[in-house]
Amino acid sequence: MVDTVVYGSVAFDSIKTPFGETNKTLGGSGTYASIAASFFSKPGIVSAVGEDFPKEDEEFLKNKGVDLTGLEKKPGKTFHWKGEYGYDINNAKTLDVQFNVLKDFKPELPEEYKKAEYLLLGNNDPGAQLDILNQMDKRPKLVIADTMNHYIENQREKVLEVVKEADICLMNDSEARMLFGTPNLVKAAKEVLKLNSDLAIIKKGEHGAILCTEEKCFVAPAYPLENVIDPTGCGDCFAGAMMGFLAKQGNADEEMMRKAIIYGSTVASFNAEGMGTEKLRDLTIEDINKRFEEFKEIMRF
Amino acid sequence: MVDTVVYGSVAFDSIKTPFGETNKTLGGSGTYASIAASFFSKPGIVSAVGEDFPKEDEEFLKNKGVDLTGLEKKPGKTFHWKGEYGYDINNAKTLDVQFNVLKDFKPELPEEYKKAEYLLLGNNDPGAQLDILNQMDKRPKLVIADTMNHYIENQREKVLEVVKEADICLMNDSEARMLFGTPNLVKAAKEVLKLNSDLAIIKKGEHGAILCTEEKCFVAPAYPLENVIDPTGCGDCFAGAMMGFLAKQGNADEEMMRKAIIYGSTVASFNAEGMGTEKLRDLTIEDINKRFEEFKEIMRF
Repeated sequence: MVDTVVYGSVAFDSIKTPFGETNKTLGGSGTYASIAASFFSKPGIVSAVGEDFPKEDEEFLKNKGVDLTGLEKKPGKTFHWKGEYGYDINNAKTLDVQFNVLKDFKPELPEEYKKAEYLLLGNNDPGAQLDILNQMDKRPKLVIADTMNHYIENQREKVLEVVKEADICLMNDSEARMLFGTPNLVKAAKEVLKLNSDLAIIKKGEHGAILCTEEKCFVAPAYPLENVIDPTGCGDCFAGAMMGFLAKQGNADEEMMRKAIIYGSTVASFNAEGMGTEKLRDLTIEDINKRFEEFKEIMRF
Repeated sequence: MVDTVVYGSVAFDSIKTPFGETNKTLGGSGTYASIAASFFSKPGIVSAVGEDFPKEDEEFLKNKGVDLTGLEKKPGKTFHWKGEYGYDINNAKTLDVQFNVLKDFKPELPEEYKKAEYLLLGNNDPGAQLDILNQMDKRPKLVIADTMNHYIENQREKVLEVVKEADICLMNDSEARMLFGTPNLVKAAKEVLKLNSDLAIIKKGEHGAILCTEEKCFVAPAYPLENVIDPTGCGDCFAGAMMGFLAKQGNADEEMMRKAIIYGSTVASFNAEGMGTEKLRDLTIEDINKRFEEFKEIMRF
């Protein structure tokens, strides 16, 4: 029974970093997020792929425990992203995007998905995110939405509506600065709180994340990695693992949210240690729990 | 009895930030670092000022417990720095520098200072830093050196010598990346460890600091501030408070160093909340200890 609906892309990625290269391997925000969630809960993915999508990738996702009822197979080709990371491995340069089957894709949620209590709206057109939310039978217990600079620049009002509708809207530091016109992340978080949220989370990439309520902040570092091979999908893994963990707990208060952020950072850190989804393939919940405990040691004073 | 020798500038600063402006008010790396150290230990400052240096500033420093035996009064004017911070308040743009009495200044340590067990070499010409170290009667128990991009670009070998000679060389993330040619801070820290150090500390400004040994890392966030008014001197406060705290403890093992980093971040965070040295003036050790405890709460999960 699917408890966590993940709306996000399933893609072929061609990635080049200073440490490796992939050619049309499995990627996409929905892929990363649902694999990350699968370590904790039962995710179902909402997206479309083309006729070229291989049986092995489907099998891989199924074996991870990802439900594919919401993954439509359409005539045409799978979404393709090509990107490159330079010396400063934090920012990708997009070399090519071919939307293919995702162009004008209007997802329809399977009946089972409409009953799910947990909904993760991966970064996407804010109107499409709201449409998915509206398709749910009733308001889920927890809605987490991701956003990105492209939509903030071009559809600011609609993005603010998503921030209002979701329980938690994830954005990174530059997105938060852009959306709220302040360089100060605590101030930006306070602006999020004014938009009908009890909690605001701002991601800071290699510097971790902050969580603010009206009264206080939690500041989580990222796991200090000596070998960052490929950061593609780390933000999606962060969101997916957070959501999966919270779905498993059935509770998303501030205390649980602090743990969820550390679980998010943990799965994201493993993901960065390999090309594409490579490191997620053999990852176990034991590996994840071990690194979660290490966070206590690296933050102790 | 001076236990902590602080080598750094005493200056007049003219600062403009989006939130305020000062005109020739007390500043300089030595000033900030020694005030920060004074909350914990007995610092003495090594620098020079001109005939224009006012009695009130001298009295202020003395009242804070800063020894001024090593502060030479020379014919001419006090060092003057003029800088401006823009919207992104993390980086200053230097508008004017007048070295005045610090031009060709060759400090001679007072006899009492030569016996001190703790030496903080503020960021300065690396040759001058080594000269101060050589003037000490015997190798101090702990030597912390600060550096900056200007010297890394122009005197890389000499800066590496300082890293080797000091117990801890403080650098910020961009300086570490420049010095060791890697964007990865854990890798850069490992390079520091190869240079005769047991511990490496890299400062990340608003993102905190990391401490690495061969075996593990400690990752400290900065205190999440909603109102950053003026970051001038924060790096010096970090170094000074760290050193003062370690001098007071008489122990600089990894456990103590973790606490010292949090104390450094604490004093730096107060400093950023006012223009120039404003916030340090009425700050008490009780305020500092209270915020130190708050760090436990903001890092708890």
